[in-house]
Order: sequence, then structure tokens, then C-alpha cells
Amino acid sequence: MDKILELNLEDFSVVVEPGVTHKALNTHLRDSGLWFPVDPGADASLCGMVATGASGTNAVRYGTMRENVLNLEVVLPGGELLHTAGLGRHFRKSAAGYNLTGLFVGSEGTLGLITAATLRLHPAPEATVVATCAFPSVQAAVDSTVHILQAAVPVARIEFLDDVTMDACNKHSQLNCSVAPTLFLEFHGSEQVLAEQLQRAEEITQDNGAFHFSSAKEAEERSRLWAARHSAWYAVLALRPGYKGYSTDVCVPISRLPEILVQTKEDLKAQGLTGAILGHVGDGNFHCLLLVDPEDPEELHRVMAFSELLGRRALALHGTCTGEHGIGLGKRQLLQEEVGAVGMETMRRLKAMLDPRGLMNPGKVL
Amino acid sequence: MDKILELNLEDFSVVVEPGVTHKALNTHLRDSGLWFPVDPGADASLCGMVATGASGTNAVRYGTMRENVLNLEVVLPGGELLHTAGLGRHFRKSAAGYNLTGLFVGSEGTLGLITAATLRLHPAPEATVVATCAFPSVQAAVDSTVHILQAAVPVARIEFLDDVTMDACNKHSQLNCSVAPTLFLEFHGSEQVLAEQLQRAEEITQDNGAFHFSSAKEAEERSRLWAARHSAWYAVLALRPGYKGYSTDVCVPISRLPEILVQTKEDLKAQGLTGAILGHVGDGNFHCLLLVDPEDPEELHRVMAFSELLGRRALALHGTCTGEHGIGLGKRQLLQEEVGAVGMETMRRLKAMLDPRGLMNPGKVL
Ligand SMILES: Cc1cc2nc3c(=O)[nH]c(=O)nc-3n(C[C@H](O)[C@H](O)[C@H](O)COP(=O)(O)OP(=O)(O)OC[C@H]3O[C@@H](n4cnc5c(N)ncnc54)[C@H](O)[C@@H]3O)c2cc1C
Ligand SMILES: Cc1cc2nc3c(=O)[nH]c(=O)nc-3n(C[C@H](O)[C@H](O)[C@H](O)COP(=O)(O)OP(=O)(O)OC[C@H]3O[C@@H](n4cnc5c(N)ncnc54)[C@H](O)[C@@H]3O)c2cc1C
Repeated sequence: MDKILELNLEDFSVVVEPGVTHKALNTHLRDSGLWFPVDPGADASLCGMVATGASGTNAVRYGTMRENVLNLEVVLPGGELLHTAGLGRHFRKSAAGYNLTGLFVGSEGTLGLITAATLRLHPAPEATVVATCAFPSVQAAVDSTVHILQAAVPVARIEFLDDVTMDACNKHSQLNCSVAPTLFLEFHGSEQVLAEQLQRAEEITQDNGAFHFSSAKEAEERSRLWAARHSAWYAVLALRPGYKGYSTDVCVPISRLPEILVQTKEDLKAQGLTGAILGHVGDGNFHCLLLVDPEDPEELHRVMAFSELLGRRALALHGTCTGEHGIGLGKRQLLQEEVGAVGMETMRRLKAMLDPRGLMNPGKVL
Repeated sequence: MDKILELNLEDFSVVVEPGVTHKALNTHLRDSGLWFPVDPGADASLCGMVATGASGTNAVRYGTMRENVLNLEVVLPGGELLHTAGLGRHFRKSAAGYNLTGLFVGSEGTLGLITAATLRLHPAPEATVVATCAFPSVQAAVDSTVHILQAAVPVARIEFLDDVTMDACNKHSQLNCSVAPTLFLEFHGSEQVLAEQLQRAEEITQDNGAFHFSSAKEAEERSRLWAARHSAWYAVLALRPGYKGYSTDVCVPISRLPEILVQTKEDLKAQGLTGAILGHVGDGNFHCLLLVDPEDPEELHRVMAFSELLGRRALALHGTCTGEHGIGLGKRQLLQEEVGAVGMETMRRLKAMLDPRGLMNPGKVL
């Protein structure tokens, strides 16, 4: 009984119960003129996305779950029912008391069980255009991203795919792209606005040495490109049949992206690992997908060590050890290094306050 | 020694110490290509704006303080120094642990002393255009707002001023506007994009019966209009020399705005009070400025009763008793009604956890 409740088109809000996925919600919203833009690629449940503070490709324009949750119904570990913004409320902003909604978004199920989420909806774009372009270097791709953001071009998606990922996507999704650092861009707006945005993006990327700038307006061609992007995980897996995938993500201030991407490539080579890099580069966030032989515990060990090194490199550049995947069990040590002793102590006191018996996802995060 | 520290133009971030105002920051940023859009009208300090979770006219497009604070340095009541996102970090998003930054934004100084704030900057708009239009009714003005938002016209500001406010502004700021429910709109973008946005807004407002749609591109005329808007408080005060002003604010789901605005007008009349209504209507938020004779304690009593009634009307419509001004001392009872017993208990436990001796702004909020 996964239910979509209380759809308010004029108020741009909807209430969903656990189990409703973002795909199901958007299917339900089709023809309503509204949509829910947060899209982690995988078909996740919206309450799960609240719990992990998910984001994904559209976050650069529409924000992450943090900016798109208006209210939560939560069963606290003691059994009380909390409505973080008050029962039935779905206003857009408030200055009333502490931000309880924000406390539960991204808490990874450790503070309470989310039983309903009130989400903020957005007007569906009138038209959409997608562009791809390849670059001579990672630096050129990231510089283009910074310049596009600085020029206030309201890009809806700006995704980076490295040469390994592009090679995998070409093979797996029958693309015919250059095997080079690549940006996938998407713009939302009216026809006229799109034409202008596209032109400015093309100028900026070409000033940064881009080659093969091409764009697609038709739904079919756009879907083909995004399907390729969203299948990148499986495309990379297919590079080494029988291997398993291990994924990690970090986020840094955008000016530090080129150096960490170059370092990461070198680390992969030094460790003899196969890894693909792709990222939501408008947020300074990227993922590394590593391939590991399930029969080779030593390789798994190297993969884990690499992931930890990557987290530390991000921390050294004033970044975070995870932009969207969360801490879970694997990144607890990195979290300590990230927020420091007082930060950890404050988080531990929060956990102890809400869940004194440690019932909720024990051992996770802290 | 109010200091602006660590300005990172490529990373769109800046660190400010207490005392730095948003006006001072924007003066400092002039010619940098970036700006900080949150603008409460009054010349508030940025750390104060963090503490109150301020928002204001630009929030409909750029968000409130909640969406624009990346990190905080906080002295906790026990004396420990907390960096809510980790020392020196200024990434755009993270899924690492609990959202401590969000907990302190809007906490009204009751949880700790903010000693530095890392803020998110935005690209300065290439061009700006302002429009005003008058409507035959409050309903027509609000319907226009909803339709503009639904059409995904990326309006930067959309402000409602009622007939009383317009009358006061005409007199105080030498405007020559109709004394009718009015919208002030502002658009940010390239010249070409602005022309299109303006045209769509004009069509939508005219479909809703607007009269006197007029726009201004020149900086001087734009400043004159916004100066009038920002002086509205003083303009209303000038309606009754010798009187004092009392201001209250609420926020409701936008579809409920017409009924609460009409009710509020009737309440003012029934209570024999002089009040002006103006609001950040794109967020469903509005302010009521009441005039009170300082020699008349009975009138002050009626003003307070009116403010409480207005808060309850907002609550009954699934809204909040304060969209931006906060709880302070005056709205503690309304906060209880808004978030319910479990919400209050959770807030009390948060306060007790961080400030067990009750040192920080005692008696406020809770
Ligand atoms: C191929 C792939 C690509 C991905 N790409 C992205 C991406 O680009 N961006 C991104 O942000 N994420 C990405 N993810 C991660 C994805 O966002 C998360 O897996 C998703 O948010 C979790 O939702 P779920 O319904 O699968 O939750 P689950 O996996 O079931 O749970 C995730 C966590 O949330 C908790 N939880 C779940 N439901 C609740 C609830 N009702 N109350 C309290 N706690 C709850 C669980 O205890 C668990 O700790 C990707 C995942 C995959 C598989
Ligand atoms: C004419 C006028 C119009 C306004 N319009 C708007 C509007 O449109 N939108 C809006 O959001 N607000 C509006 N406001 C309110 C304004 O935003 C707040 O007054 C402002 O945010 C407070 O900043 P301040 O520096 O004046 O803080 P103060 O008034 O000094 O303090 C406000 C609160 O924050 C706490 N505080 C201050 N500094 C710190 C710190 N460093 N650490 C911890 N706590 C601290 C104080 O204890 C107090 O509780 C308006 C105010 C006026 C006078």
C-alpha cells in the first residue's frame, strides 16, 4: 500500500508514504504540469532518499533532498509520532523554532522511522535540451563548469564523465562519443531561453577547448543520452565480466575538482585498479566506480584503501568524504576526521537524546 | 573588527564574522560578479540573519538563510568551539552525518553563539528589470503569483502591497501608483531572457485583470521603486504621526493566501486597527504592520490580540505562525500550537542537550 497522498498542485506539494519511488511519483504527476526533480538515477524510494539526503543529476539547479522536504512524519525510537513541521503543514518557509525537518533529512534511519514525507514540487520545464561535449583535459571540463555557473546560465544538469566511463558507455549503450573527459549538460526553459543558454554554453566550452559540442532536443535522443548516463554503472561493470562494483563518492569546493580528479586517476594507476569517474560536477561532487574481483580479497583490500585515501584527499581540500551516499558503516572514521571532536560529540549527543537505547540502525553513522 | 574573510570567487563562498551586514558584504562584492541575495530590507548583520533564519524579497528565487549557509563556527554554551560542517569546509553539499548547520540556522541565539558564518554566493544577474501592476482584488494578485510560478517564470522577487501600503508609499515616496492591491516583480537574467519573462508576466497578470502594468529597466527607476518598497515600514508609520509600529508575519500554503488576506482585512476593521499588509507572496508569506498609540494601552492590547488571531488563522490553514521573524518571546504559545506536544518536547530536549544550564537567550523560543 504505497500511497501518494494530498497532492496540492497550487501549493506545489505532495505527501508520500514509504515505498513510493521518485519514478512512481513522477509518473503520477505526468500531465499535472509539476514534477519532483531530485533523481539519484537508481529507482529509490522517496522516504529512503529523505533518509540518505539523496541528490543526483538535477541538484545543481533544484537542490538536494535537504531543500525539497517540507515536513516529515517520524516514529521516534520511544514510539511517539513526530510531525517535524507540525501536523498537516506544508508551507514553503518558516522561522518557527528549531529546524526538526532538516535534522531527519540525511540521518540514515538512525534517529527515527520516516512514515510519510511532504515534498516540494516544481513546475515541469516547458522544453528541454541536452548537450554533450568532449574536452582535451579534466581541467578544461571543470573550468567550463565554473564559467557556466559564474555566467549564471541556469543549467539543470551538468555531469562529468571521464575517458574510462565514456569508453564503457560507448560500448554498452552504443554511443559514438569521443573517449575523453566529457560533459553532459541539460537546460530547462522556454524554446527561446533554451536557444540562448545553449549558445552561451557552447561559447564557454569552446573557449575552454571543447571539441564535438552537440545538442539534442528530441525526447528520444535525449532519453538515449541520459539512459546511457544512468547505465554508466552497468556499462563500467561490463568492462570486466564477473567483477563486482564498489562505489564511493566525495564532494569538494569546485575550484579543487581538477586537482583531486587528476590525483585520483594517478592513485588508481598506482594501485593497479580499474575505476571510472563520473560526477555531478556543478556541485563539486563525483563518484568513483571501482571494479573488484570477488575471488581476490587482496584486491578488495586495495579498493577499500583507495576509497579511504580518496575520502582523505577530499577532506584535505576542504571537502566532504561523501556528497550523497552517506556514512553508513564504511565512512565512520572519515566522518570523525571531517567534523572533528566537537562535531562528533554533538552528533553523539543528538543520537543519545533521540535514541537512548540505540535501537535505530545501530552502529551506523556514529 | 567586523571582518569579511576567505572570499572564494570560484567556489561561490565567503566567511563573515559577526557585525558584517549584508549591505557591507554586497558592497565588498561589487565588481566581483557575485553577490549574496538574501535581503531582509533592514540592514541586518549576517550572523543575526543566520540566527533568525531571515529571508526577505529574493527568497522566492534564491532561498532563505537556510539554503545559503554552508558552515558555522559556534561557541557552544559549555565553551566548546563547534564547526558545524567541519573546520574550514565550504563544499556545496554533503551527506556526512547529521545536519548541524541547519540546526543552528533560525535557533535565535538559544543554542550557541555564532562567531563566523560561511555563506553561499550567487552570480550577480547580468541585467535586472522591475515591473509593477495593480489588481482589482487580492485574489487576482495572488492568482497571478500562482500562475507565474506554475509557468516556471523564474521571478526573482514578487512582492504584494495592499491598498493601505500603496497609499502610504505614494505619499511617503512620491510614487504615483494606484491605491489597489499591487505586485512588485523583479526579473534577473540576460537582456533577451528578461524581455521574454516580462512579456509572460504581463500576459499572466492581464489575464487576471491587472491594470497599469509598467516596467523599469534603468537602475535609477528600479532603485526608486525598491526604495519605496523597503521604506514601506516608515511610510506606514508616517500615516499616523506619533504612533508606534508593531509588526507580525505569517506564512501559509500559497493557495490559502487570498482567504487569509481577506479575513485579515476584516479583522483589522472589526478591531478598529490601522494595519498595512505587504508580503513575499511567492512564498505565501506576508507581514502586517500595525499602528498603535503609545499612550493607549488598550489599543496595544487589541494589537497583540489581533497578532495572535492572525497566527491562529495561519495555523488553521496549514501554515506557520512566523515565516521569517521568529518566535522570540511573543509567539511561544503559537509555536506550541504549531508543532504540537511531541514537536515541543523534541525542541525542549534539543535545548536541554546543548544548553543544560539555560544560559543562551533564556526564555526565548521555548
Ligand atoms: C546505481 C545507483 C546509482 C546511484 N546514484 C546516486 C546519485 O547519483 N545520487 C544519490 O544521492 N544517490 C545515488 N544512489 C544512492 C541512492 O540515492 C540511495 O540508495 C537511495 O536514496 C536510497 O533509497 P532506497 O529506497 O533504496 O533506501 P534503502 O537502500 O532501503 O535505505 C537507505 C538508508 O535509508 C534508511 N531508510 C530507508 N527508508 C527509511 C525510512 N522510511 N525511515 C528511516 N530510514 C529509512 C535505511 O535504513 C538505510 O540506512 C545510487 C544508488 C544506485 C544503486
Ligand atoms: C524594517 C525591518 C524590516 C524587516 N524585514 C524583514 C524581512 O523582510 N524578512 C526577514 O526575514 N526579516 C526581516 N526583518 C528582521 C531582520 O531580518 C532581523 O531583524 C535580522 O535578521 C536580525 O539581524 P540583526 O543583526 O539585526 O540581529 P539582532 O536583532 O541583533 O538579533 C536577532 C536575534 O538573533 C540573535 N543573534 C544575533 N547575532 C547572533 C550571533 N552572532 N549568534 C547567535 N545569535 C545571534 C539575537 O540574540 C536575537 O535573538 C526586518 C527588520 C526590520 C527592522
